[in-house]
Amino acid sequence: MTITQRICAVRSPIDESIRAMIANRRPGHSLEAAFYLSPAVYEMDMEAIFGRHWIFVAVEPDIPEPGDYVTVEIGKQSVVLVRDDDGQVRAYHNVCRHRGARLCVTPQGSVGNLVCSYHQWTYTLNGKLAYAEHMGEGFDKSLYSLKPVRVETLSGLIFVCLAADAPEDFAAMREQVEPYLRPHQLQDCKVAAQIDIIEEGNWKLTMENNRECYHCAVNHPELTASLFEFGYGYEPSPSNVDQLQRFEQMSAARCEEWEAAGLPSAECETLDSRITGYRVRRMPLDQAGESQTMDGRAASNKLLGALTRRDLGGLSLWTQPNAWFHFMSDHVVAFSALPLGPEKTLVRTRWLVRKDAVENVDYDVQNLTAVWRATNAQDRALVEMSQQGVRSPAYQPGPYSPFTESLVDKFCNWYVGRLAACYPD
Amino acid sequence: MTITQRICAVRSPIDESIRAMIANRRPGHSLEAAFYLSPAVYEMDMEAIFGRHWIFVAVEPDIPEPGDYVTVEIGKQSVVLVRDDDGQVRAYHNVCRHRGARLCVTPQGSVGNLVCSYHQWTYTLNGKLAYAEHMGEGFDKSLYSLKPVRVETLSGLIFVCLAADAPEDFAAMREQVEPYLRPHQLQDCKVAAQIDIIEEGNWKLTMENNRECYHCAVNHPELTASLFEFGYGYEPSPSNVDQLQRFEQMSAARCEEWEAAGLPSAECETLDSRITGYRVRRMPLDQAGESQTMDGRAASNKLLGALTRRDLGGLSLWTQPNAWFHFMSDHVVAFSALPLGPEKTLVRTRWLVRKDAVENVDYDVQNLTAVWRATNAQDRALVEMSQQGVRSPAYQPGPYSPFTESLVDKFCNWYVGRLAACYPD
Amino acid sequence: MTITQRICAVRSPIDESIRAMIANRRPGHSLEAAFYLSPAVYEMDMEAIFGRHWIFVAVEPDIPEPGDYVTVEIGKQSVVLVRDDDGQVRAYHNVCRHRGARLCVTPQGSVGNLVCSYHQWTYTLNGKLAYAEHMGEGFDKSLYSLKPVRVETLSGLIFVCLAADAPEDFAAMREQVEPYLRPHQLQDCKVAAQIDIIEEGNWKLTMENNRECYHCAVNHPELTASLFEFGYGYEPSPSNVDQLQRFEQMSAARCEEWEAAGLPSAECETLDSRITGYRVRRMPLDQAGESQTMDGRAASNKLLGALTRRDLGGLSLWTQPNAWFHFMSDHVVAFSALPLGPEKTLVRTRWLVRKDAVENVDYDVQNLTAVWRATNAQDRALVEMSQQGVRSPAYQPGPYSPFTESLVDKFCNWYVGRLAACYPD
Repeated sequence: MTITQRICAVRSPIDESIRAMIANRRPGHSLEAAFYLSPAVYEMDMEAIFGRHWIFVAVEPDIPEPGDYVTVEIGKQSVVLVRDDDGQVRAYHNVCRHRGARLCVTPQGSVGNLVCSYHQWTYTLNGKLAYAEHMGEGFDKSLYSLKPVRVETLSGLIFVCLAADAPEDFAAMREQVEPYLRPHQLQDCKVAAQIDIIEEGNWKLTMENNRECYHCAVNHPELTASLFEFGYGYEPSPSNVDQLQRFEQMSAARCEEWEAAGLPSAECETLDSRITGYRVRRMPLDQAGESQTMDGRAASNKLLGALTRRDLGGLSLWTQPNAWFHFMSDHVVAFSALPLGPEKTLVRTRWLVRKDAVENVDYDVQNLTAVWRATNAQDRALVEMSQQGVRSPAYQPGPYSPFTESLVDKFCNWYVGRLAACYPD
Repeated sequence: MTITQRICAVRSPIDESIRAMIANRRPGHSLEAAFYLSPAVYEMDMEAIFGRHWIFVAVEPDIPEPGDYVTVEIGKQSVVLVRDDDGQVRAYHNVCRHRGARLCVTPQGSVGNLVCSYHQWTYTLNGKLAYAEHMGEGFDKSLYSLKPVRVETLSGLIFVCLAADAPEDFAAMREQVEPYLRPHQLQDCKVAAQIDIIEEGNWKLTMENNRECYHCAVNHPELTASLFEFGYGYEPSPSNVDQLQRFEQMSAARCEEWEAAGLPSAECETLDSRITGYRVRRMPLDQAGESQTMDGRAASNKLLGALTRRDLGGLSLWTQPNAWFHFMSDHVVAFSALPLGPEKTLVRTRWLVRKDAVENVDYDVQNLTAVWRATNAQDRALVEMSQQGVRSPAYQPGPYSPFTESLVDKFCNWYVGRLAACYPD
Repeated sequence: MTITQRICAVRSPIDESIRAMIANRRPGHSLEAAFYLSPAVYEMDMEAIFGRHWIFVAVEPDIPEPGDYVTVEIGKQSVVLVRDDDGQVRAYHNVCRHRGARLCVTPQGSVGNLVCSYHQWTYTLNGKLAYAEHMGEGFDKSLYSLKPVRVETLSGLIFVCLAADAPEDFAAMREQVEPYLRPHQLQDCKVAAQIDIIEEGNWKLTMENNRECYHCAVNHPELTASLFEFGYGYEPSPSNVDQLQRFEQMSAARCEEWEAAGLPSAECETLDSRITGYRVRRMPLDQAGESQTMDGRAASNKLLGALTRRDLGGLSLWTQPNAWFHFMSDHVVAFSALPLGPEKTLVRTRWLVRKDAVENVDYDVQNLTAVWRATNAQDRALVEMSQQGVRSPAYQPGPYSPFTESLVDKFCNWYVGRLAACYPD
């Protein structure tokens, strides 16, 4: 499916060979190599995908108090997210209006005003230029406010859009997704750990890898300790038909139970049918069934929000183009992929627990992060192996499994459709 | 001389300025700077030279048993060389037909089947897809065999050609060269040592440096302990005419003796007159006259094949575009240059001894490798000094010595002629 | 002001978008981002600015004796500066005329002849090819001299111009500036320390930072221990008017006193009105008033030349496009910025004291270099922060302070004017 209902045309002319690749994409198959390799495609990705869509970049617990800020790099853009004196999350281009120096040079901090350390131009948390020495009588400070960036929050998840005409369907996502997330009360969490890894691969290989579990059984022993492999698609066969059926019955029963307890659980999916595409679903976990840990037990003793039971499985949210999340009764794991180059991607993982949980009393960071530290390292190896492979001129797009890779296909549908919409003929 | 008898035209259009450089190459002079620097020329080199000619990449002793494999990188291409169950050497593109992941991720190994670690697609040693899970009823495995690469062996040396229409004159080289190599029985050897070095220079500077010994006397004290400098070209002068004459008489006498003993020794040379150009020649060595060691003595006690005498000098083979070899009575040294970028080249050196020679009993690795470890390091410095020099806009092609650099000129003739043939007007 | 009186047109065609940026430069504002980022602009900078103007590269004390040489890299060019047997400073392209190897591979040395280590081609200090083996009867050595580079000295400072038609106004600069520099007798100094740092920024940001002290008060505590901040421009205000006036009176009085003693001190400035633009001025220093040290006292006991008093303040010279200097009674600090890439610049600092000053007796290197080691590190951070900022598409040129950044504006005027002159329509 190609999403062309809303055209956000980008003015840059694009190469005819890329236009042909977009037009000729073969559904059900992996993308042409140039999508993973070409610097020109990378520029388009940064301009059209990361420049004109809602991008998950941070969580509200990164900046709990007024004056707290974090910076985020999206390609060549640097954005500062700051909580203003009214408690609102604000986003600005991290560039001084004097001679363009980077304003906030550390990734995180807490300030009264935003002061450029070069010549001390000073901006309020609302982005107004409050002070600039030596500029003379005629200088009009009101012309030199920080440039704002569009920002929205979704139950504590912070998204930005670098384009002025941001997609309008963020509200539709919020309406449908917030009931799923709200009970986990992310705003009342704290970041217990954050780990960045750099994958030597195109960001789309990172995302494709995220959108299937065909590779899990053999590659992810830690993750599949709690994850049911049947939950991510399976080809029925005489030898597994009974197991599959049992899993589906159990899964349906648990969902019914959770829904009855006021926890939305059924799958909602708009991955390739909306500009702001997403998928959300709660699924049972194996073993103790509480959390994505080595034994399936909760990693933190303080349950989130007003939750009272531990065995809520995993509520997963996937957002286009670059993020995925697992909400459990005791903690949340939030992932983002941010391109650093045509063949380099930053994968940032945050683990959040209740704000009042005490480290080494209520939770142990090593235990909390064990499964995803191992899984991320394994995925990184797989992504890099894929990147190495598609570099070969002998590579040609191959077929996706209709059973286990349909969400990968939806990712590619969305991606190619969005490029087509952003670069109309 | 320009080899245009067989045209293997490449379809990519090339830049007019490069076409002009090819057309205007001045014989007897080094190449224009862009040949050593330009990314566009590098792409042509990889496409036309390394993509359409027979490239030495490995030796049969790298993969002695069925299931043994090695991988080789030629530019962006990765090739896996594997011995199949019938003992044949096979070559495939090292790319899974599913989503393009690299199939063999370690440079060397031994397997029953070739299994992609991403989703376990499984190929036989003959390249057929034998197993792929979750692909459904209609999936036709026969369409997803590994893509084959053309491969030939020459007395145990393995060459591949990435093009389907490989040059047909490999057979002519084999016919002429095998009688020289056969007595050394490379197939019955083992790799005693392999060392990779990376030179920060264009691969053609590596090759030009290999094709002359004008630089040896001052730069290579270890090598010239056994190598006669007269053997590589010399300008006659009143002061050296007697020495030169004595060397030539001695050399002729030894060759006659070796030929009588069934060991072809006289020079055969087609370096710039064939597509698959080569030069082969046996020459006496100095001191003990047995081997390229510090004292000229054999480095291994087990003589190769059915050889019975040690003083067989050095049988050298040079092949276009990227390899050279020295076969002695006790060991063989095999070199290949593989481009890593416009200004970066991998030089891989293998030292081979008889399979049944025992380390530290029959040979000592430090002694076996001493001369060429030192010489390679010296050559690397010379190549890098040359690369630094040609980067200067002040560089202009200079004259080759007619006495000591005629084989460098032949290398350039071959190279420029092959580009002209591959990119006809 | 645009210097177009003398056209040195470069033949390379340039991009229309760059031509438009040159034509539309907004005076009084920082440059468009592409000037700091674009590889195409970098190529123009190296061709037009560093390839066709007088560039400060070394000092005579680097090569005090015949046969002493230093090499300098200007972009892709390598130049060897050598003192010949007659004591003249000579400059050659550092490229052997045989196969183009780099001739002098160490940055500094002392030789009888210039000998290429590859094949021993041997050149006299006057650049003539004196010896080349194996080249045969017909070889004419006179055709293979080293290629000369234009070189001039200014009271011991060495400038080169890579173009044959070098700007003719070097003589005008010499006539005006030598009376200022001569009393400090740089030729009779030695290099007590040289430190290279690499800034991850465009060379023009390095220069712009050098041309203002708006950033000094907050960022340079060590430098402003001796530097009066009023000396570099200040917006008058009711609260500082008295201080400013006192500084100007004191400054005028000291200048009069120095001029009377035969030391030219008044400002001369042609920064954007000459091809070979410069500014020279002597200014009082704070504290002991002798030198740019932490306490303002001289760092070396041996005063320069025939100077007899220590409190001569700082005689500063700034030259377009890439250098600045501070001459004090006891030592000289010489700085050059040499581009290494669009976003990388080498800043080389030399500290010179009298040739007969004895280390650890007359001067201590740590004390001598303390202020500028600290200041350079601070400036490097500022330049890198600026480079990071201008990478953002959100950057747009901002206004310079008319009080503190007029010399930055003159640098940009000169730069843009020189590009316009070198690339006429």
